[in-house]
Amino acid sequence: MESRSSKFPQVIIIGGGFGGIQIAKKLKDKEVNVLMLDKHNYHTFQPLLYQVATGGLEPDSIAFPIRKIFQKQANFKFRVANVTQINTESSSVTTSIGDFHYDYLVIATGSETNFFGQKEIEHFSMPMKSVPEALNLRSLLLQNFEEAVIEKNAQAKQAFLNFVIVGAGPTGVETAGALAELRNHVLPSDYDEIDFSKMKIFLVEGANRVLPPFSEQASYKAQQFLEEMGVTVLTNTMVDQYNGEQISFKNGDVIPTKSVIWSAGVKGAIIPGLEHAQIVRGGRIKTTDYNLIEGYNNIFAIGDISYMETEKFPHGHPGVAQVAIQQGQQLAANLIRIINKETPKPFDYFDKGSMATIGRNKAVVDLKFWKFQGFFAWITWMFIHLLFLVGFRNKLVTMMNWIVNYFSQDRGTRLIIRRFNRKTMKEDIAID
Amino acid sequence: MESRSSKFPQVIIIGGGFGGIQIAKKLKDKEVNVLMLDKHNYHTFQPLLYQVATGGLEPDSIAFPIRKIFQKQANFKFRVANVTQINTESSSVTTSIGDFHYDYLVIATGSETNFFGQKEIEHFSMPMKSVPEALNLRSLLLQNFEEAVIEKNAQAKQAFLNFVIVGAGPTGVETAGALAELRNHVLPSDYDEIDFSKMKIFLVEGANRVLPPFSEQASYKAQQFLEEMGVTVLTNTMVDQYNGEQISFKNGDVIPTKSVIWSAGVKGAIIPGLEHAQIVRGGRIKTTDYNLIEGYNNIFAIGDISYMETEKFPHGHPGVAQVAIQQGQQLAANLIRIINKETPKPFDYFDKGSMATIGRNKAVVDLKFWKFQGFFAWITWMFIHLLFLVGFRNKLVTMMNWIVNYFSQDRGTRLIIRRFNRKTMKEDIAID
Repeated sequence: MESRSSKFPQVIIIGGGFGGIQIAKKLKDKEVNVLMLDKHNYHTFQPLLYQVATGGLEPDSIAFPIRKIFQKQANFKFRVANVTQINTESSSVTTSIGDFHYDYLVIATGSETNFFGQKEIEHFSMPMKSVPEALNLRSLLLQNFEEAVIEKNAQAKQAFLNFVIVGAGPTGVETAGALAELRNHVLPSDYDEIDFSKMKIFLVEGANRVLPPFSEQASYKAQQFLEEMGVTVLTNTMVDQYNGEQISFKNGDVIPTKSVIWSAGVKGAIIPGLEHAQIVRGGRIKTTDYNLIEGYNNIFAIGDISYMETEKFPHGHPGVAQVAIQQGQQLAANLIRIINKETPKPFDYFDKGSMATIGRNKAVVDLKFWKFQGFFAWITWMFIHLLFLVGFRNKLVTMMNWIVNYFSQDRGTRLIIRRFNRKTMKEDIAID
Repeated sequence: MESRSSKFPQVIIIGGGFGGIQIAKKLKDKEVNVLMLDKHNYHTFQPLLYQVATGGLEPDSIAFPIRKIFQKQANFKFRVANVTQINTESSSVTTSIGDFHYDYLVIATGSETNFFGQKEIEHFSMPMKSVPEALNLRSLLLQNFEEAVIEKNAQAKQAFLNFVIVGAGPTGVETAGALAELRNHVLPSDYDEIDFSKMKIFLVEGANRVLPPFSEQASYKAQQFLEEMGVTVLTNTMVDQYNGEQISFKNGDVIPTKSVIWSAGVKGAIIPGLEHAQIVRGGRIKTTDYNLIEGYNNIFAIGDISYMETEKFPHGHPGVAQVAIQQGQQLAANLIRIINKETPKPFDYFDKGSMATIGRNKAVVDLKFWKFQGFFAWITWMFIHLLFLVGFRNKLVTMMNWIVNYFSQDRGTRLIIRRFNRKTMKEDIAID
């Protein structure tokens, strides 16, 4: 086990997402040693993954090497490691590259796709929570058209041209919109042998409206935008089964499709070892109002993985980047207070609002006292996303791509670098 | 087998490289049907692969979807297919997606890495002829440093920090230079736990100078540049063996290394079925002076795969992009002549010169009557490469990256998206 490198307490942060990055940054120049562990060597800007999947952006534009973020932070160390076990007795974590001791442990592992125990759906449908998953989806989409071109049987051909997105949260809505733009503006000139009036995009939602967490006004407008763009929106519709050939719904309807994109829910990415911790609905870990995991005195959880009940949020906080960011910042300050034997301050979430883009000049923005949709909302969405994107080069390249895509009505990145394998449902066939 | 779609003759082009793209373009609006077959759905700009491998560019910037190149060409069709057999009797090709009939067949399969039959070297060393291979190399490089950080044994650590590039042609020289810049400017701020004075880059060449096909002056200056940047250049040195742990040379020297980059030679990418064809040195196919494969009347070979002896080039033409491009253009015109029962014109190669970049402000350019090196050569190199890069977006994004890289002395794209597998020597471990 790696021994402690100085007299300062060792803070281990598991996960380099929005929350993990923030707390590590705020601990700069403080009298602690920070060790971040992540299975990736990069931070992923998840809100733009759908643009990687639909060929609008390169992964390198929305992900950023974690080591680079902390180049100038002397008390920060990073390891690419998969954490497999938390050992609360010995205050250590077991990982793919060995054990590490902690004085304070921050669990910022975020969330993973929730298939609600439906193994067949889990195998055959496409999640979109990571860069590799987005690239898997990109290859699947492009290969569908290559296979549709050579498919003689009309029924089989249609299955390649039907796209079903399950879950109409921001990710589902934005993906449906991006697919519609591919069909309306990009793909027809690539595949003159395909009749794109036959390409169907279905957005399926169990609730009675798209973007359930948004305002009614935003939901209404978003659905209007989607239908203008030719997306079939199916609300109050629950998925029954999907076998890789056809998806069936609880209402008995069936759609033949080779592509089901699953954005219907998430669950906390739990690491074994927290016996005393209280795991609540959605696999989240119950914490105090300063992110301490109840039952422990030096283990904390922030962001999607944490479940914190407050007066304002009696059923926990939403699983969005802003909560993770603010909890990360707050916990950094509280850790220093705790180390200095001071009383930690309770977390108070400031909701900056939410937004989703449907397509060119089409977005919805919900602010506390102002809700607006359309072109200005779309500009706002782009501005905010560029603002939060890590790294000057990423901001620049992404903006360039967006400008070119806007005027050319094109999506530049349509390479099948690794072939999608319909058996493993992963992009794992190397083509040298 | 797909039947002929019209009364016009069917021209099948195997390979979407520099030659294949050119002949297809020049056949636009001509009375032929063009079918291009490639295992990738994109054209690769091979001269910049080394920048993908060393984290300077995204693959999407140097590769371009083939369908997009020919969006406005009515007589062009494309299939993603692996051609496994040429059936000269039935005038058809057998592929991974079925058989296709041809009236005229153009073999533009280019070249593949030549390991000269050394199976162990082939397994353990890294070629760099395709986008997937460049990405494999990128992941290997980055993982070496992640592993060096946690490696306690000094000898084992050094093996991660020794990089051996075999073959000092343009690819070898440019890769060595790019690695030196990573060590000198980029990696130290990422890995403050590594002593980068221990990172060694060896460029190994069997001939008595680097860039053997270039002028003596260019070779001399290129080696000087490389040594200024801290690359150890070993000329007159032949590789004996490499087992994944250490590379040994015919002179008895041994270097422990986890990374051998193989750019020591190429051979024609032959497809079975050409019994009468004369396969000469380097697996190239002997053709007449208008690229007809001797022994056939409707099968042609252009670019790296073709071997054409002329007065000016009694030992065949160099395996460079310009030869492929010019042969492609010329053969398009000749095909039309042949179809119109006219006499085809002999190929006459116009050598536009050659260039290689070693690093920031350091390049060498050989023109027929003017040879120059240094800053202006470097500017020329960048200008020419941007000029030949396919697609406005690619030119723009690449230029942006080069500008940012120049001023930041950084390389932006350092993501390990898929983990490199030292058993398969491929980047095939998905990290979701």
